[in-house]
Amino acid sequence: MPGNIYGERFVVVSFGESHGKGVGTVVDGVPAGLALSESDIQPDLDLRRPGQSIVTTQRKEGDVVEIMSGVFNGRTTGAPVMMMIRNLDVDSRSYEAMVNTPRPSHADLTHKTKYGGFNDYRGSGRASARVTAGFVMAGALAKKLLKETLGIEIIAYTLELGGLRADGFTVDDARKNRYSNDVRSPDPELAERMKQMVIKCRGEGDSLGGIVECVALNLPVGLGEPVFNSLDSDLAQMALSIPAVKGVEFGSGFASAKLKGSENNDQYYVDKKGRITAETNNSGGIIGGVSSGMPLVYRLAFKPPASIAKKQKTVDLSKKKQVEMVVPGRHDPVVVPRAVPIVECCTAIVLADHAIRAGFISPVLGGKST
Amino acid sequence: MPGNIYGERFVVVSFGESHGKGVGTVVDGVPAGLALSESDIQPDLDLRRPGQSIVTTQRKEGDVVEIMSGVFNGRTTGAPVMMMIRNLDVDSRSYEAMVNTPRPSHADLTHKTKYGGFNDYRGSGRASARVTAGFVMAGALAKKLLKETLGIEIIAYTLELGGLRADGFTVDDARKNRYSNDVRSPDPELAERMKQMVIKCRGEGDSLGGIVECVALNLPVGLGEPVFNSLDSDLAQMALSIPAVKGVEFGSGFASAKLKGSENNDQYYVDKKGRITAETNNSGGIIGGVSSGMPLVYRLAFKPPASIAKKQKTVDLSKKKQVEMVVPGRHDPVVVPRAVPIVECCTAIVLADHAIRAGFISPVLGGKST
Amino acid sequence: MPGNIYGERFVVVSFGESHGKGVGTVVDGVPAGLALSESDIQPDLDLRRPGQSIVTTQRKEGDVVEIMSGVFNGRTTGAPVMMMIRNLDVDSRSYEAMVNTPRPSHADLTHKTKYGGFNDYRGSGRASARVTAGFVMAGALAKKLLKETLGIEIIAYTLELGGLRADGFTVDDARKNRYSNDVRSPDPELAERMKQMVIKCRGEGDSLGGIVECVALNLPVGLGEPVFNSLDSDLAQMALSIPAVKGVEFGSGFASAKLKGSENNDQYYVDKKGRITAETNNSGGIIGGVSSGMPLVYRLAFKPPASIAKKQKTVDLSKKKQVEMVVPGRHDPVVVPRAVPIVECCTAIVLADHAIRAGFISPVLGGKST
Amino acid sequence: MPGNIYGERFVVVSFGESHGKGVGTVVDGVPAGLALSESDIQPDLDLRRPGQSIVTTQRKEGDVVEIMSGVFNGRTTGAPVMMMIRNLDVDSRSYEAMVNTPRPSHADLTHKTKYGGFNDYRGSGRASARVTAGFVMAGALAKKLLKETLGIEIIAYTLELGGLRADGFTVDDARKNRYSNDVRSPDPELAERMKQMVIKCRGEGDSLGGIVECVALNLPVGLGEPVFNSLDSDLAQMALSIPAVKGVEFGSGFASAKLKGSENNDQYYVDKKGRITAETNNSGGIIGGVSSGMPLVYRLAFKPPASIAKKQKTVDLSKKKQVEMVVPGRHDPVVVPRAVPIVECCTAIVLADHAIRAGFISPVLGGKST
Repeated sequence: MPGNIYGERFVVVSFGESHGKGVGTVVDGVPAGLALSESDIQPDLDLRRPGQSIVTTQRKEGDVVEIMSGVFNGRTTGAPVMMMIRNLDVDSRSYEAMVNTPRPSHADLTHKTKYGGFNDYRGSGRASARVTAGFVMAGALAKKLLKETLGIEIIAYTLELGGLRADGFTVDDARKNRYSNDVRSPDPELAERMKQMVIKCRGEGDSLGGIVECVALNLPVGLGEPVFNSLDSDLAQMALSIPAVKGVEFGSGFASAKLKGSENNDQYYVDKKGRITAETNNSGGIIGGVSSGMPLVYRLAFKPPASIAKKQKTVDLSKKKQVEMVVPGRHDPVVVPRAVPIVECCTAIVLADHAIRAGFISPVLGGKST
Repeated sequence: MPGNIYGERFVVVSFGESHGKGVGTVVDGVPAGLALSESDIQPDLDLRRPGQSIVTTQRKEGDVVEIMSGVFNGRTTGAPVMMMIRNLDVDSRSYEAMVNTPRPSHADLTHKTKYGGFNDYRGSGRASARVTAGFVMAGALAKKLLKETLGIEIIAYTLELGGLRADGFTVDDARKNRYSNDVRSPDPELAERMKQMVIKCRGEGDSLGGIVECVALNLPVGLGEPVFNSLDSDLAQMALSIPAVKGVEFGSGFASAKLKGSENNDQYYVDKKGRITAETNNSGGIIGGVSSGMPLVYRLAFKPPASIAKKQKTVDLSKKKQVEMVVPGRHDPVVVPRAVPIVECCTAIVLADHAIRAGFISPVLGGKST
Repeated sequence: MPGNIYGERFVVVSFGESHGKGVGTVVDGVPAGLALSESDIQPDLDLRRPGQSIVTTQRKEGDVVEIMSGVFNGRTTGAPVMMMIRNLDVDSRSYEAMVNTPRPSHADLTHKTKYGGFNDYRGSGRASARVTAGFVMAGALAKKLLKETLGIEIIAYTLELGGLRADGFTVDDARKNRYSNDVRSPDPELAERMKQMVIKCRGEGDSLGGIVECVALNLPVGLGEPVFNSLDSDLAQMALSIPAVKGVEFGSGFASAKLKGSENNDQYYVDKKGRITAETNNSGGIIGGVSSGMPLVYRLAFKPPASIAKKQKTVDLSKKKQVEMVVPGRHDPVVVPRAVPIVECCTAIVLADHAIRAGFISPVLGGKST
Repeated sequence: MPGNIYGERFVVVSFGESHGKGVGTVVDGVPAGLALSESDIQPDLDLRRPGQSIVTTQRKEGDVVEIMSGVFNGRTTGAPVMMMIRNLDVDSRSYEAMVNTPRPSHADLTHKTKYGGFNDYRGSGRASARVTAGFVMAGALAKKLLKETLGIEIIAYTLELGGLRADGFTVDDARKNRYSNDVRSPDPELAERMKQMVIKCRGEGDSLGGIVECVALNLPVGLGEPVFNSLDSDLAQMALSIPAVKGVEFGSGFASAKLKGSENNDQYYVDKKGRITAETNNSGGIIGGVSSGMPLVYRLAFKPPASIAKKQKTVDLSKKKQVEMVVPGRHDPVVVPRAVPIVECCTAIVLADHAIRAGFISPVLGGKST
């Protein structure tokens, strides 16, 4: 596959550019019989939509999704589901000026080289975070599928932003609070401090990084393959497909490198309901590549957005000499808040794919008699 | 694909179990015309072989590779290359005792559940690190292919072990020193301290984690696809397929989450040879999913091995009650040293796949006239 | 992959239903730099469009293609190309009546069973020949790519219709005549007789089958893989994906079963230009799964359309008893003429995929300097 | 995938060459819990083994299969099953003489060109029918899987050989008789005439073609995808991967091109057991790409083997001039009898893949309690 298609049984095709006609997805492998309409998709799209608050880019897009195929009488048919949004608030003027001055740490130069200069560089084209709108459409579908068939719930939130890190919160806090504040924090008080930090940073023409943590509850034991398509492998692959992600870790993650086996191992006991459970979850819910039944817990590190208003050095390609530039256009001072629903949706895509692969979701839901 | 096949154009099939007849690989997509014999594969296998030193398991295996297909007159033919080693020093006695007492943080319970109890649990079966011998065979082939066609060099080493972290070394140090000491450190002095720490830990019946860093030099610009098969996506997927890896990060990685854009961005200049270069490499050699021409730099976090000699709690599955156990068998007190050649080989597999995908390596090398 | 995605390097995603909002395709893997606009796609769509002549269905569709992504400044960018047409002349009234009476030799019953009754049965849904409009969009792109890079030309035509078979014509005749008559015959005189036969058959409420032959010229030696993805394997797979195709044969095909080796073998000589050529082409341009440089020649057998106006027997599913029915709706009395451009386009898809796989077309065409 | 890997969920990897060390397969995606040993595989291998009778090549091979992985305690584990045979009776002397004189209608010239002369040409290398031994190993496993889970039975036989065609026989005749005669005919009397024809033809230094028909019984409704991976598409792809196959047709096949819809349609009725059944089976058991529950019926046309003892014309590549040659070596005067078990096995591979895809076979058979 050339690189815009993800998955084995729940397959997500991505298309569209930031400043083209629109952005969308085709999802192949959706089981038949799932109740589905635009109203199942739109809320997640709204959560990632630009221009929502002071902590995001000021580009205004309605991002109204249209389902073009694969649904009949309000239910999925088993055929590919195509969904798309149109681009409306496109302002490409500033990009012509940058054709010869690649923005530092942006894909401008690598993509120009890879595609021989034919790439659509307006608004970063395929490298734009706008492409993730397609991930969200597919992921919103996946979330509904997982919820209705297996009761799986996926909760992501801003764990860290600009060095401020949430602590002492529960999953319930996260479930309740994350979408009630602009920065998607599980902790409303911390959220306000994070927001002020973003405002200050934006004022300085700079940007901030952060960490998104994602928890998935009610996974059955057995999602993931032991070797190349382990559940963590595939989640990591998807995670690094989200723009600006520079790292991913599961359970105790990088911290486990400093632990001893006796500290890191998750020892078993029988819980009150008679289930075999682990006393800790340093494994992050995945052992030997396969979901353990404990909550899936993983974290994604987002770098600060490369587009900043400060003066930076680049090279004028036409003159082959270093020049100074200030990146024009409208940008996010931090991507983490908008990334939270994206991470939930991307997680759902991977879980849906593995749930179908492992036979936990059948090709026809419910099913009418013939 | 069911989960034991990796790649698009340089495809690695994994087969074999820890205590079965052997372990091997089929590599499909190898360009024709590469000089290849067992002597190209054996050195890497020797580097990962168990029983080499005091810091590894005492299982003794010759691990002598045999190339079974795809090579004729000393060169690859374009047909699948099958390679395998036999298992010789198999001692499965201890595993029967553990059938009903899954080892903490081992795949025993997840795989037993997933496969309905039919999995080969001896020596952890498919979950064993022994399966990585197949990765090494395929990767040694990939390394040679990359070296001969593009001059790519891959250097991994132990960055951190048991909390001790190498610092102030160069890639040249790593190239020269890593395989001259038992722990695969770029720093011989630190290596000795790490070794003593492993010996002490083994004596306590415990195990240690660590971090492997991998650098790849001379990559052309343009490896990797912008969206789902970005170079970092695919390297991350492969990384998490190595047993015991719990995290992966590229360039500034998790540290970038605490940086500002003005600190993290890699600004461009024209170097003395007229090449456009970045002043820093926080991107780790990948921007927008595509190799930038700067060195690829990424790190893998390895948890401490789950098999320890200390008493641990688990559940007796037949009685559904908690019991104490001591894991028997021969194990590595730390996997990091043996993981170093594995990481190099796995990196080579991913790079070879992308180099072929992007057209940097042609289906026939050199080529005789017809 | 779930079944609506074709190819390895030139990948065609199909979506849409006969009576839904529209039909389209996403093509991933298109090399960057190909000049492309709707005017490159529309002519082939016009050739397969319904309602063109007396020999086709009377459904009237404009079938005006819109390219939604992957093209910038008039050239492909290397990103996925999404193309679609809207459905306008939809009349679904007749299909409700048939929900419980599956049409003989139609997909009604098999798809209803497979999808638990959730499938979109209007106009046959995904089983409709309308889905092939997406194949044509992708194939028109592939044809242009093949023509511009390798000079490949693809010529399909009606070899046989209703038992009347063309004979004594040349490829030049086919090139010149096939789209000048309603039945797509290389022979204008025969075309008229075929047309009268179709008119007569339509008048009788019946339908006709036929054979399409396809020739591709200027193929390089080396397209196709020796074993599972042989060029004939992949062409056959694609051929059987076209609705109503019941057989495919290459070169001497089924006739070769009655020949001796001494009669069927294609013996070599050196032609006037010094090229090694075969005296005959019973191989149909493919030997050992790989293109030989001789013209590719293959034939597809199309059954007569299952939708006929004659009274037929079926089963009322709600009553589980046999009933008589007359299939309502607007249908083609023969699909062969409309299949001719479809076969050309489908052939182009397979050849483009293999040309990229084998390295004959590079990821960037021409290429601007960076 | 590069071309030696088939399938989506039941995946067959092919490796090995005619005159290399051996030939084999890795099957990934085999459900756990299937009782399996070499004795399940060997009978099918014996049926295709060379040197069995006067109608086949005189190369003598034991073809004793060894299962190397994926089986534990007599049952499949869910891990990849690697199986192989060694080549013993290799006589490569004659092939050196042919390096510069490609055999007519053999892969010699196309493969030499494709692989730049690096291909293993001994015994035709990867183009040899010996490669199908790997298909048979994988297919024998698939046959057992289909039989035990769904009761599917696959029966292939020689329908036509050298122009002699079986007629007036039943599936029961075929089941009973096909492996009781050397030519694999359902009709013992015809078998003798076919055998005499082969003997005569061999004596003349020539070869014969033929047609294999394959029937599969007890398929559930719903195998196959509606568009690109229709059941007929995938069967056709596999069929054309068998050496010497030049055509494939389903049900009424090419004959349907001459029929009217009213003649070709399969009309429904309710049978005595209350099942909806078709009065005829011109569809060959597949409608709209999906199995209908009627018997699968398809036919494969085999050309006469290209290796004949008669003098033929070829080109001396070193001198670029036409020369005469007589193909040396040991060859089959007709491949059809040995192809019969191959066709059964290849059919089983495709059906197993689709049965798993469609959820008819679960990842764990039976299953022990955890």
